[in-house]
Amino acid sequence: MKEDLSSIKPLRGFRELTPEEFGRKTLVISKAEELFRLYGYEEVEIPTLEPLKLIELKVGDEIRHRMFRFKDLSGREVVLRPEGTISIARLMATRLKAAPLPARLSYIGNMFRYDEPQRGRFREHTQIGFELFGSGSMLADLEVLEISVRLLRDLGFKEYHFKIGHEGILRRIMDDFGIKVDKQDALLGMMDRKEWDSVRSELKQQGKAELLGLLEKMSSLKGSDQGSIFEKARKSLKEIPGIQTLLDDFKKMVDFLHDITGGLVIVDLGFARGLEYYTGMIFEVYVKGLEIAVAGGGRYDGLCKLFGLDIPAVGFALGVDRLILGDEAPKTPKQPFVSLIPVTETVHEYAFQVGGELRRTGIPVITEFPTKSLSSTMEKVSKKEARFAVIIGDKEASTKTVTIKDMKSGEQELCTLDVAIQKIGERVQKGS
Amino acid sequence: MKEDLSSIKPLRGFRELTPEEFGRKTLVISKAEELFRLYGYEEVEIPTLEPLKLIELKVGDEIRHRMFRFKDLSGREVVLRPEGTISIARLMATRLKAAPLPARLSYIGNMFRYDEPQRGRFREHTQIGFELFGSGSMLADLEVLEISVRLLRDLGFKEYHFKIGHEGILRRIMDDFGIKVDKQDALLGMMDRKEWDSVRSELKQQGKAELLGLLEKMSSLKGSDQGSIFEKARKSLKEIPGIQTLLDDFKKMVDFLHDITGGLVIVDLGFARGLEYYTGMIFEVYVKGLEIAVAGGGRYDGLCKLFGLDIPAVGFALGVDRLILGDEAPKTPKQPFVSLIPVTETVHEYAFQVGGELRRTGIPVITEFPTKSLSSTMEKVSKKEARFAVIIGDKEASTKTVTIKDMKSGEQELCTLDVAIQKIGERVQKGS
Repeated sequence: MKEDLSSIKPLRGFRELTPEEFGRKTLVISKAEELFRLYGYEEVEIPTLEPLKLIELKVGDEIRHRMFRFKDLSGREVVLRPEGTISIARLMATRLKAAPLPARLSYIGNMFRYDEPQRGRFREHTQIGFELFGSGSMLADLEVLEISVRLLRDLGFKEYHFKIGHEGILRRIMDDFGIKVDKQDALLGMMDRKEWDSVRSELKQQGKAELLGLLEKMSSLKGSDQGSIFEKARKSLKEIPGIQTLLDDFKKMVDFLHDITGGLVIVDLGFARGLEYYTGMIFEVYVKGLEIAVAGGGRYDGLCKLFGLDIPAVGFALGVDRLILGDEAPKTPKQPFVSLIPVTETVHEYAFQVGGELRRTGIPVITEFPTKSLSSTMEKVSKKEARFAVIIGDKEASTKTVTIKDMKSGEQELCTLDVAIQKIGERVQKGS
Repeated sequence: MKEDLSSIKPLRGFRELTPEEFGRKTLVISKAEELFRLYGYEEVEIPTLEPLKLIELKVGDEIRHRMFRFKDLSGREVVLRPEGTISIARLMATRLKAAPLPARLSYIGNMFRYDEPQRGRFREHTQIGFELFGSGSMLADLEVLEISVRLLRDLGFKEYHFKIGHEGILRRIMDDFGIKVDKQDALLGMMDRKEWDSVRSELKQQGKAELLGLLEKMSSLKGSDQGSIFEKARKSLKEIPGIQTLLDDFKKMVDFLHDITGGLVIVDLGFARGLEYYTGMIFEVYVKGLEIAVAGGGRYDGLCKLFGLDIPAVGFALGVDRLILGDEAPKTPKQPFVSLIPVTETVHEYAFQVGGELRRTGIPVITEFPTKSLSSTMEKVSKKEARFAVIIGDKEASTKTVTIKDMKSGEQELCTLDVAIQKIGERVQKGS
């Protein structure tokens, strides 16, 4: 006997979405694809499954322990990708290394993390990424910020805010105190997780009390009063070589973001993100109705070098499944459609022809298959909110006509297909 | 020291696609999405990772041994989905069980099989599925056939053919000889893999020599001469109750497919597919330049019942990564675009405004970041085949003008943004 499958639910935290739920994702994805095109980001595909070694190295401690990892049939350690930037950087630095720079790449794909599921946190979720390779110009940072603002705004979000910081400044400070990159990654990870006790004991052990003081100072510099934040930062960091240029450029980014969002910016100079590859500006986006970030990104100038191509890069990714939970997330609009109703199976050839002609006008045509009674079919069509019913019985098939019924007004008439198309087209276009 | 990552390649058989490669997939996906809309198939999402138990039961022996399976951190046996229909059927029968029927669902997602990689056979590949639930009408089968033909044709394929068979007829014959469903699944699997020795020894052992004769007869009935095939089938099967209606309906499907493809049909009455859930018409599609099927599907009336909803269903799926290997697969057309060239970082605010206005017209605008020399930038822009360059220096920024250069004619002029937009729009639209 075969087992009953009805008890086998989707795995916890995995996405199983109905048309209504998925429709909200489609809206976000279409808008992102429009921006891919308008800003010249060419879509690529990266593997869902990757060697553990690849991902493990720069993904950061937090994610490292929450990955779906296993041995494949050949005994190799593999992992369901928890994020996309590492794989994209490899693609850029290997197969695309001869591409003219700057190169703009984008992707849409599902990512996997063994997180404890909660509102907005899924074990599988769709991410959209924009990555800009080969420019260290501040303008590249601005472009990434601009696109992220535009994406939210085009989707109708009004109450959102950006949190922006700069790991390049934090790294520059640590450089100055002789902290190596590995240790920087670890310290930034602790700052990201707000593990200040660990930061303190780590730095005290190394006799870096002054550095600790500066990092603590940085983490106190946050808020929406940029002028004062940058002024204090300049003062505190005036001894660190090269920091003033970094601050100048960063201030321009913050000002730009401030301008284009109408002030929805929180600067946080102690801000660090979990991923270890960031080397400059970093940001996260928050929307109303959700505590966790819906998008995030930043500059990661060293990542491609790990794959043998020393070029700068900046980018961001958006979590689609999270974004659609926001209070202001757009709803899928209802599309008008035609119900095509062949009354018997014998008219299938003519019904096929009618369906073809109607669809050629761009109108969705959904067939209702013959049932015992036309009236029960009509009731169903009315419940599904078809805009028109096009009924084909033996009479219509033999005279090459159709009966159309306007489901709003209830008017019904027998006419030629041409006339039907014209009437339906007119009223659907008017939206009446 | 951090390890060098440049040697860590994508896993064998996994998809890592450059913009050019992915562009061909995009074309196929967009066309499929247009057909989702025109035929009323609503897109859903199904989990990438599923409980092993769910997939294992009906996926068939061939795939069962080629799955990426592992234990997750909780010790549960899970599998990267090898196909989509089982998960879609569960979604339909559980969360969508109250939806009005027929219900049309679609999906686009990556599937995973531990196959030996070869031309057209990948370990990860993208599948597009159309599934029609709740109608046992022959017209539903026709719709699925029609959509698959239309998809190929809209993409420009001319040299393709369909292979069509009917597992419902084979199961009806086996029913008549008292063969249980499990055993039917096994026998059909053997027929799919052409393991006729196994079929013979199995049936002889059970003393079903007559059944063996009929199945062998069925497998000899194939080719493009439908008339004669159906005539012979009718004769051979005249003793099997209920078979004539099945043959009548199946003949209508074959005739329809013959008509809409202009005769590109091979009927094969011994045809079985690897998946165990088929109960009626089944088909596969082949294109020029590839030995293996690019699409396949059929009727699977019993699958939803396993999840507690007893409704018929028919559908098909298309392998995108395979299809784009076909000789006639469409090439991505080049889109005209504008290169926006801020000569210095200081003009970034005006450049942002110009980029915004240009993009509002729907034209892609790709920014070239300031480099040491404008002439090297212009050379790059010319190589990238920009249609127009829009140059913004300090002069342009201060007078709110732009310099536009037609990269085809070489003409260059200083004008207002409005004039620039008009000129670019005119020439891009004309395609000149």
